[in-house]
Amino acid sequence: MNGERLNGWLAAMSEFGKNPAGGVTRLAYSDADLAARACTMRLMREAKLDVVVDAAGNIFGRRAGSDAHERPVIFGSHVDSVPDGGNYDGNVGTLAAIEVARTLGEQGVATRHPLWVACWQNEEGGTWGSHLVTAETTPAERATVARSGTSIDEGIRVLGGDPARLATARLHPGDVHGYLELHIEQGGILDRDHVDIGVVEGIVGLREWDVTIEGFANHAGTTPMSERRDALLAAARFTEMVNRVVTAEPGRQVGTVGRIQAFPGAPNVVPGKVTCTLELRDLDDRKIQRLYDVIVVESRQIGARNGTTFGFHEFVTHESARCDERVHALIGASARTLGLTTMSLPSGAGHDAQNLARICPMGMIFIPSVAGISHSPREFSRAADITNGANVLLGAVLAMDAVAWS
Amino acid sequence: MNGERLNGWLAAMSEFGKNPAGGVTRLAYSDADLAARACTMRLMREAKLDVVVDAAGNIFGRRAGSDAHERPVIFGSHVDSVPDGGNYDGNVGTLAAIEVARTLGEQGVATRHPLWVACWQNEEGGTWGSHLVTAETTPAERATVARSGTSIDEGIRVLGGDPARLATARLHPGDVHGYLELHIEQGGILDRDHVDIGVVEGIVGLREWDVTIEGFANHAGTTPMSERRDALLAAARFTEMVNRVVTAEPGRQVGTVGRIQAFPGAPNVVPGKVTCTLELRDLDDRKIQRLYDVIVVESRQIGARNGTTFGFHEFVTHESARCDERVHALIGASARTLGLTTMSLPSGAGHDAQNLARICPMGMIFIPSVAGISHSPREFSRAADITNGANVLLGAVLAMDAVAWS
Repeated sequence: MNGERLNGWLAAMSEFGKNPAGGVTRLAYSDADLAARACTMRLMREAKLDVVVDAAGNIFGRRAGSDAHERPVIFGSHVDSVPDGGNYDGNVGTLAAIEVARTLGEQGVATRHPLWVACWQNEEGGTWGSHLVTAETTPAERATVARSGTSIDEGIRVLGGDPARLATARLHPGDVHGYLELHIEQGGILDRDHVDIGVVEGIVGLREWDVTIEGFANHAGTTPMSERRDALLAAARFTEMVNRVVTAEPGRQVGTVGRIQAFPGAPNVVPGKVTCTLELRDLDDRKIQRLYDVIVVESRQIGARNGTTFGFHEFVTHESARCDERVHALIGASARTLGLTTMSLPSGAGHDAQNLARICPMGMIFIPSVAGISHSPREFSRAADITNGANVLLGAVLAMDAVAWS
Repeated sequence: MNGERLNGWLAAMSEFGKNPAGGVTRLAYSDADLAARACTMRLMREAKLDVVVDAAGNIFGRRAGSDAHERPVIFGSHVDSVPDGGNYDGNVGTLAAIEVARTLGEQGVATRHPLWVACWQNEEGGTWGSHLVTAETTPAERATVARSGTSIDEGIRVLGGDPARLATARLHPGDVHGYLELHIEQGGILDRDHVDIGVVEGIVGLREWDVTIEGFANHAGTTPMSERRDALLAAARFTEMVNRVVTAEPGRQVGTVGRIQAFPGAPNVVPGKVTCTLELRDLDDRKIQRLYDVIVVESRQIGARNGTTFGFHEFVTHESARCDERVHALIGASARTLGLTTMSLPSGAGHDAQNLARICPMGMIFIPSVAGISHSPREFSRAADITNGANVLLGAVLAMDAVAWS
């Protein structure tokens, strides 16, 4: 594995959609995205991979296996970014996968299973590329407008796919031997604890609610404190309560109130209404439900204190996706063989791997994000950690190739 | 005093700027405002008052006194409204003042002092009319754009005034014998306690701050609860703390957080910054300062808990205006002579009276607002209470006329 070459590719990739202040804006379906994908295909070809773009617009670099009857091992990531994103999210996993395939080719290593290096389209807009190949979608769903301004169907066409032929791109349970993805952690746990490799336990479930708090708007000068039905005071108690409930028990669950608005929203009017959001994430979907139930009960108590009412409307629901325990074990073994320290941890962010978990054993490898900063030009992972991650991926691909799932 | 006539005028006045759903939108300088002012001038003339519009656009209906050397007693209010306002705020005091003057004329009662019935312009936009006659202003200040879209100077011209001749409208300390204003309470204290008349102690001081809370924005999925510098959590603790500090001691002080925004304001991002407002009001300016000092200290402690910082920028400062104790006494006596129950209370809202306090002894009379609702189409005061208020005003005008301030 050539770490210098890999980190060189990463630097070259950072030119596509580069922002003046650093980092990239490489929205799916944009010119910058197309340029990065062209570079990806060129690198795949240089690695002697057969490049195909499927009907969903995903890129696969394929290498044949020695056993014509075996199903492929897929590994890869994405190259699109959020607005004002960083140079590591997605790129590390995609380029490391190409480097793994190139190394195997250069060293003449044959695998029993075919290897498919994947570059999934539009990960940042909602893991669309991997979703399209692992689930049924409707034209109405694909009418969703991506950040670049085009619908998913238009985007598929821009990338060289064909929405009318999506069925030809579908992968069903049993079609794939296994899936591996290397990614930056995006959190700060590995960096803080000086651990080389994170072995992912699974991708957390995520639920988001719009919360509406109704009180009564009134004159802030003439309404005594005791007679107020202040919706913002109730929202404040709610926000603090969510923090308390989520942190009251051990575990890595998180809860966030990220958006808030008070109505009418004037300095001299007691707020009569507040809308805010609640988000809960955990690897255990039942824990999310339990926390939510406690939050709803405590919200009623908060409302009773000052004559306000709480309403909850769920608008995002993603179930958690567990990594396969056998894949988790072979990733950990691959890292330890290289003398690297490891830690098991959940992924708090979503990844294409969660969709692949629908159809095959799946595992993920994390490398440290310095200070846990991500989705930012300040996102950074050290070259040595990137090389480590690629080596762990190489070992894991070979180990997965050698396994016959029982 | 003809209560039926007064309440009839009030019903007629409610037609100007009437909203389909009830109440009025009669923004200063709008056509509806001009129509209501024309009606006011007509009623003044019917009451045999000499109508003048001063250079500031205020309307005065004047009646001569028997002593040519005496300074005027001024009493009145305003007829402009907030957007979607009610039918009582301002109108009650203006029309009752005309009714008082008309009654005195009809009954042939002479007063020693000239009587000036005042209709101040643009009260709801910041007590502009009374401010312009009691303080120096600059063209830059008067470039402020009112809700109707015109500047104060343009508005003055619309009303028939002349910004270039404002000096001719100025009233200085010693120019006026005293000022009285009847108004609806706008709060719910008199209604709740079944008291007929509120004798105002003064108009509270008011200070408003923009509060900026800085934390660090981060991924809501990958950032553990313990590592967050969540500005919205700090804002929640701030909002609850303000409520606790303000209600911790006896008194009628109020504190409000009325506006809030979290940045970036997405459900899946830990807020890195929050802006909100703080407003404090009390009749004692020193108490406002003391509460503010405690709030700043406690804010620092809240910030220290989760790595956030608080900044305060004061953008509105109104000092409190005490009613003259002698005027307060003669209003109370006027009410009790009529067999009405009274209560002393501060005005939590601002009024033109606070500006008149700069130049002469000032007092205010409140009548009950049902359920304390104001600045709303649901604003309501009973006809009997309006008649009571006008009778108390009549008695107070006569009592003030009889007084020689020592």
